[in-house]
Amino acid sequence: MFRLIKKSAISRARLGKLTTAHGVVRTPFFMPIATRGAVKCLSPEELTGLGAQIILANTYHLFLRPGLEIMGKAGSLHEFMGWSKSILTDSGGYQVFSLARTRKINEQGVEFRSEIDGRKIMLTPELAMEIQQSLGSDIMMILDECTGHPTDYRKAALAVDRTSRWAERCKKRHLKNGEQLLFGIIQGSVFPDLRLKSAMEITAIGFDGYAIGGLAVGEPIKKAYRMIELVAGKLDQNKPRYLMGMGKPEQIVQAVKLGIDMFDCVIPTRNARHGLLYVNKKNRKSKAEFDGAFYQELHITNARYRNDFRPLDETCSCFACRNFSRAYLRHLFANNEPLSQRLASIHNLAFYLGLMEKIRGTIKSGKL
Amino acid sequence: MFRLIKKSAISRARLGKLTTAHGVVRTPFFMPIATRGAVKCLSPEELTGLGAQIILANTYHLFLRPGLEIMGKAGSLHEFMGWSKSILTDSGGYQVFSLARTRKINEQGVEFRSEIDGRKIMLTPELAMEIQQSLGSDIMMILDECTGHPTDYRKAALAVDRTSRWAERCKKRHLKNGEQLLFGIIQGSVFPDLRLKSAMEITAIGFDGYAIGGLAVGEPIKKAYRMIELVAGKLDQNKPRYLMGMGKPEQIVQAVKLGIDMFDCVIPTRNARHGLLYVNKKNRKSKAEFDGAFYQELHITNARYRNDFRPLDETCSCFACRNFSRAYLRHLFANNEPLSQRLASIHNLAFYLGLMEKIRGTIKSGKL
Repeated sequence: MFRLIKKSAISRARLGKLTTAHGVVRTPFFMPIATRGAVKCLSPEELTGLGAQIILANTYHLFLRPGLEIMGKAGSLHEFMGWSKSILTDSGGYQVFSLARTRKINEQGVEFRSEIDGRKIMLTPELAMEIQQSLGSDIMMILDECTGHPTDYRKAALAVDRTSRWAERCKKRHLKNGEQLLFGIIQGSVFPDLRLKSAMEITAIGFDGYAIGGLAVGEPIKKAYRMIELVAGKLDQNKPRYLMGMGKPEQIVQAVKLGIDMFDCVIPTRNARHGLLYVNKKNRKSKAEFDGAFYQELHITNARYRNDFRPLDETCSCFACRNFSRAYLRHLFANNEPLSQRLASIHNLAFYLGLMEKIRGTIKSGKL
Repeated sequence: MFRLIKKSAISRARLGKLTTAHGVVRTPFFMPIATRGAVKCLSPEELTGLGAQIILANTYHLFLRPGLEIMGKAGSLHEFMGWSKSILTDSGGYQVFSLARTRKINEQGVEFRSEIDGRKIMLTPELAMEIQQSLGSDIMMILDECTGHPTDYRKAALAVDRTSRWAERCKKRHLKNGEQLLFGIIQGSVFPDLRLKSAMEITAIGFDGYAIGGLAVGEPIKKAYRMIELVAGKLDQNKPRYLMGMGKPEQIVQAVKLGIDMFDCVIPTRNARHGLLYVNKKNRKSKAEFDGAFYQELHITNARYRNDFRPLDETCSCFACRNFSRAYLRHLFANNEPLSQRLASIHNLAFYLGLMEKIRGTIKSGKL
């Protein structure tokens, strides 16, 4: 389970160890996104080499394709995709709310049409659990009702209540064999009293960890930080805390300071595929504290890199930076060579996973 | 240079060693295609792991982009793409003839419009040499006049004559510092007397090796074999022989038996990207002799593989076959996951490079 190793004296940052059925994961950590059972362009071997300890896969996509029958025959998602470390799966709720064209929500669950074959599917809390059990993920998430931004107070309040009732139903279906952890999700949009209410209700039910959902959906970042601070302050310090879907490097640093342990975000890999690289600033003062701009975004498709034979990031020792120049990567992007997306993805994940390692080191040395 | 090690007693197959500025290449060999300075989806490290000894890059594409200025700054194509083994470059002629929308041929060279910026470019034998010298390839090819299929006799005869004159001009520009080998190309379409004439003229000029061009352009395969047999019989046995752009596995075996040492073909990697896998037949009798159908084409996108948890090829130990099932690869293709193309490319190149290794072993043991 989770062991808290250290609490910072100068912020709410924490160091910990989360033990799953597939190993120990040091917190705070970042999860690369393997939506359909593959981190785009990368092999499991490369992910391990980059220091990934755990990845996130999407229940919604994997339920629609390949589906539970094939997943059952494979044994688990780990077996299917050849990944032997930990996997967290979302509940599918977020995708139903954001992707499915027609959806109806009622107390039973969310009904939507499959984008593959058009059939109607009713995603209930029980089905969300069943799918995640079939996937064999190490960390399962409850089915929650996600609200976007902006949302009016009344709708956000109803979503909080429904999320609590669904959380109860998920917990009832949680097999207590110690193989899969189950995390609750706290909703409440940007309304402090709803966030507090949700935190109270979800923690009262009791889960292996707690996620803050419904942020990174378009709200001002300061409001997001306020909600994180508020909620994190109410959570059991001996349970891991997961901020869903956020974010940029500086947002991760800020959320760590507010007591968050777990992150996922699509931007390092998605932006990589569009040629946007995260690059550490050279020769920074007070590097350890992540003050000011500690990195920059490098648009490798820009013509200025045609003749730039430096590594992508002069401070980085990832496979892409050790072996290739900016000029070469730009050439690959200019010609739509598929290797371009792969090299950029490797670097951006090296940046993110390296950032988490630095964050852990800086908490350890008492400077964050 | 080239050292002939063994001649088969039962066919014209040969074993040899070709030494370039970047190492020793055992013949017969196959060159994966790195059109724009990258084998699609794969890193140089993976190619080395697959046993690739030499790759082929396209002068035409690299001349248009990134161009000679950037290549000059990189130092060489090897440096630019991070590949430390041998590289063969074509002369660009084939692409000008097959890709450029408007082209005019005269004695000086071929004029075409750049597909990048529309400017007119006159590709002369001298420029073809200059570009390849700038790329720093280990094996350069002369600029030839390529004929398609069908071609009338008169046109084919003119192309043979022009190719001989251009070959002379290329040879004049060949720097004799021993760093770059230069190969002549024999044309003549499917006309035996023209092939013989071309072989005589090109060998009279004298090159480090000889290529048979203008085949694999749509002619019946039996005619191609007849031309190969005819031409190979006229070539100096102490020079390597390269059959350009061919071919399927059984065609490679057949051409080896006719005395060919070097091959390139786009099909293992291009077909891989469309989900067509080359798979060894299991439990074959007389495997060594490559009789009958020694492999099969597996269309991994076919629904029958949804539930097939066997490796892609049960006889193969490549990275893709060791780690992933047909069901998983099919899932990746069904979802347009970029990892699909990479895994399929790895396997198909493992098949082709493994085929060449088997061919060398079978010649060595006197069975081919």
